[in-house]
Amino acid sequence: MAKSTTSLREVLRAPAGEVSLADVDPRSTPSAPGDKDATKLQMTADGAELSTLQEKLYAEGISGGDRRVLLVLQGMDTSGKGGVIKAVAGAVNPQGVTITSFKKPSPEELRHGFLWRVRRAVPGAGMIGVFDRSHYEDVLIGRVRELATPAVIERRYKEIVRFEDQLAAAGVTIVKCMLHVSRWEQKQRLLARLDDSTKRWKFNPGDVDERALWDDYQRAYEIAIERTSTQANPWYVVPADRKWYRNWAVGRLLQEAVTDLAPRFPAADYDVAAQRDRLIDEAD
Amino acid sequence: MAKSTTSLREVLRAPAGEVSLADVDPRSTPSAPGDKDATKLQMTADGAELSTLQEKLYAEGISGGDRRVLLVLQGMDTSGKGGVIKAVAGAVNPQGVTITSFKKPSPEELRHGFLWRVRRAVPGAGMIGVFDRSHYEDVLIGRVRELATPAVIERRYKEIVRFEDQLAAAGVTIVKCMLHVSRWEQKQRLLARLDDSTKRWKFNPGDVDERALWDDYQRAYEIAIERTSTQANPWYVVPADRKWYRNWAVGRLLQEAVTDLAPRFPAADYDVAAQRDRLIDEAD
Repeated sequence: MAKSTTSLREVLRAPAGEVSLADVDPRSTPSAPGDKDATKLQMTADGAELSTLQEKLYAEGISGGDRRVLLVLQGMDTSGKGGVIKAVAGAVNPQGVTITSFKKPSPEELRHGFLWRVRRAVPGAGMIGVFDRSHYEDVLIGRVRELATPAVIERRYKEIVRFEDQLAAAGVTIVKCMLHVSRWEQKQRLLARLDDSTKRWKFNPGDVDERALWDDYQRAYEIAIERTSTQANPWYVVPADRKWYRNWAVGRLLQEAVTDLAPRFPAADYDVAAQRDRLIDEAD
Repeated sequence: MAKSTTSLREVLRAPAGEVSLADVDPRSTPSAPGDKDATKLQMTADGAELSTLQEKLYAEGISGGDRRVLLVLQGMDTSGKGGVIKAVAGAVNPQGVTITSFKKPSPEELRHGFLWRVRRAVPGAGMIGVFDRSHYEDVLIGRVRELATPAVIERRYKEIVRFEDQLAAAGVTIVKCMLHVSRWEQKQRLLARLDDSTKRWKFNPGDVDERALWDDYQRAYEIAIERTSTQANPWYVVPADRKWYRNWAVGRLLQEAVTDLAPRFPAADYDVAAQRDRLIDEAD
């Protein structure tokens, strides 16, 4: 069990009690395997390992198991949710992954409770689900932009904890990552989008408006993490100014979680020798 | 336009009129770029090209375009639908791909028309959707196992043609591939699953039962292709005994289809210079 004592999950897990994002340097690279090149190399190896684990988890699901994994990605614009998905989900068989992007709720979604659309997107047995934004938007932009009353926001934290407890009881391992990018780095990335004609579609003038509320968002993240980081479903704060570290770290957090599940290829529930004979003895 | 005159789509397109699968050698490799190694190398290059095209298509979708692509994969057990998905979908950003596996219909699905669950799975704007099995099951196993009356089956062909015409009108480019595996090759693949303890979960004794109906299934495929291969939404018969050919061919068919769409990164719908100034002039 030496591995678990040095797990990245322990290193990046949000502290119990008060959370101060200002105390986490977005440019830091805690427990990185080395520099950029060494970390990218390790990420390839980790991806292969994750791919093997994912196939076993998927096989379990096909054979009646109910375990699955849900990776929740939150972060400010440009923090790299899309980049992480490409890097991490791209390392495994796409058939075993479902990716859900939560955008501004539709009129139909708004007619339901905020968890309604989220419940519908929970990954099926054996799958790895990825949430690109999530139910946390309803206590992040929801809080900052006052899209609901303070009392409603307060209640949502509790609803989220209960919801995630239910998921855990149903066999869902949740890995919640806050991609922690600095305000300065976000500016560089937004400018880069403007400067590259193949990236301008990713830019939205509203992104600049949101920057004026940076501190409010940071505070909303802190409160959300404080209220919803539990023993069973903790938050991880992933320094995200360095893309190579961010991608490796999220992949590693996911890999550690699936490793803990120790999925195994199911044994045959039929007589292998008899089936072999049936095939060999066919008339043709 | 030299490229389009040598397109793989022309080579593999099912003929108008009568279809005879017996006339297509499952071990053949029409228009392959070379031997196994050369073809795999070409597939890597094609995958990079597809990835670029997919990003543009996705960007269009984000920016209000409604075009999308639907890859329909049909074939007997072991024909390699899963392998194709891993190879082809794995080459592009997973965020731009939705994969739907159609299994035996659920009780809820059976309460609706056979296209109900299919309509719900049509890819959104800018996406590449992949169907692992599809509405065609309802005229394949549906016909062979007599799950519906002959009159109902007959009607379904027409409903499928109309449905796919509607999709085409809504901006969906459909690429329908029948992975054509031989009965002999299927036997080898089933035996290989039995002989490998990490693959036994993929084997189902029912697969051997279905082999007894091989000729009926081939006939059902022929009829389905004859009735539903149209100018707008043709079928492609992909020789599938050689996995390297099969994977390359499906990827290439998809790539040709997306190339025809000529997706482009959208121009900015905002004033780039003004937004740049806003960022530069920020107080911080």
